[in-house]
Amino acid sequence: MRLRLDLSYDGTDFSGWATQPGLRTVQGTLEAALATVLRVPAAPLTVAGRTDAGVHARGQVAHLDVDPDAVVAAAGRSADPPLDALVRRLGGIAPPDLRVRRVVEAPEGFDARFSALWRRYAYRIADAPDVVDPLVRGHVLAWPRRLDVDAMDEASTGLLGLQDFAAFCKQREGATTVRTLLELSWRRTSAGAVEARVVADAFCHHMVRALVGCLVAVGEGRREVTWPAQVLGSRTRDSGVTVVHAHGLTLEEVGYPDDQQLATRASVARARREALHG
Amino acid sequence: MRLRLDLSYDGTDFSGWATQPGLRTVQGTLEAALATVLRVPAAPLTVAGRTDAGVHARGQVAHLDVDPDAVVAAAGRSADPPLDALVRRLGGIAPPDLRVRRVVEAPEGFDARFSALWRRYAYRIADAPDVVDPLVRGHVLAWPRRLDVDAMDEASTGLLGLQDFAAFCKQREGATTVRTLLELSWRRTSAGAVEARVVADAFCHHMVRALVGCLVAVGEGRREVTWPAQVLGSRTRDSGVTVVHAHGLTLEEVGYPDDQQLATRASVARARREALHG
Repeated sequence: MRLRLDLSYDGTDFSGWATQPGLRTVQGTLEAALATVLRVPAAPLTVAGRTDAGVHARGQVAHLDVDPDAVVAAAGRSADPPLDALVRRLGGIAPPDLRVRRVVEAPEGFDARFSALWRRYAYRIADAPDVVDPLVRGHVLAWPRRLDVDAMDEASTGLLGLQDFAAFCKQREGATTVRTLLELSWRRTSAGAVEARVVADAFCHHMVRALVGCLVAVGEGRREVTWPAQVLGSRTRDSGVTVVHAHGLTLEEVGYPDDQQLATRASVARARREALHG
Repeated sequence: MRLRLDLSYDGTDFSGWATQPGLRTVQGTLEAALATVLRVPAAPLTVAGRTDAGVHARGQVAHLDVDPDAVVAAAGRSADPPLDALVRRLGGIAPPDLRVRRVVEAPEGFDARFSALWRRYAYRIADAPDVVDPLVRGHVLAWPRRLDVDAMDEASTGLLGLQDFAAFCKQREGATTVRTLLELSWRRTSAGAVEARVVADAFCHHMVRALVGCLVAVGEGRREVTWPAQVLGSRTRDSGVTVVHAHGLTLEEVGYPDDQQLATRASVARARREALHG
């Protein structure tokens, strides 16, 4: 039986998603909570987006394969449906900065990582003292200078589509940096903050934060609106591009196809990944 | 010269607004920051809403009387207008959970407390695991049972207007509990949380949190929709009314009249307050 878990976390006090010895990670914390509640020796999770240290998530998705009997046993004598009871138990045992919002039985062929069609991130910036809100300071970056949102939005259009994002990626041996950037748009929220909406089939390491850092230079007027597309075209890291702080970044949503198309999507994505990585 | 300060704070680590010996308070922290920046021995503030321990503010307003020369001296050699420079200096010295959003010269007759026409608070509740968002857990109360927002909204209408709120107030010797409740409405936010909007000319101690606690009993179906109005009519504290946690409460906005009417408003409010308190 495969379970789909929908998660939110405040990344502030986690050393990212992936388990690392001796560090507090989202994966390590959640797998331990699941093993306790399900009374199993280990509960290995597969995740849609491996977030870095300090990055938050509101719409993270993971999957876990379990023995159905363990789920029924974990629910105990609760009057709720077993998976709802599991959510409540996890709510009681997981720390307040990590919430399991929902657990459902995954449809046939579902894979949290390989079935995903796209990942959507938000990056939030408060660019003036009168919009810095201490209540959300953990996930909104305070920036000391005003940003021109229209210029950033215009510059973003030059980055869309199927591209080699090597200029914005931390290189890994043998890994492709080709991605499809489906959306990169900027707006001012009702609270006056600046918000980027960034959607791609997948992201390489540091990609959103490097894209935002590049566009902030345009928003400050330090660079021309055409500069980000030039950096992209160069396919090499540019020393003028700053990787902005992790804490302004939140994984908001992961998109999956209809249930009927899940298995097909996963096998296509897996084959493509294998082909690209050699 | 009178300055109007617009403030936001995360109330989590403050023992409320008002200075108390040995405790970290918003007033104590801000007055110390102002005294440092303005290089004066003391900077006594008058505030619109004296929030309790743990209560947050996004739209708190205070005033301070200062020597104009101190403001110019504090700005130093900054190219910004002196009051903008003051905001920047305060931003550098105040802790991250307390932000001065704006400082302006107050119009003639302005008094942060007595000129105020109304105070608006929000109370936020996440009433199911799938709406609990760890990124905003500091200012949204997690509640273990689903709430009927329509029932709470309907019950709230019976509390509006000029009333004696003794049933919802922590009594203080000689203090009136008569207030005008201008708005008390409930809605579900786009994020799925429950939010109360509460506006009154002024509030007595614990009033919003007792009103919310009373209405939550209706939202859970433990009490009839007519019960809150009955409690109000009794004019005595009811043991069935729980004062909900402080951390779901945020002072969002303080309303003032047009500049021309400020002085009149302040003298009327002061005279009324004196008459009511004997």
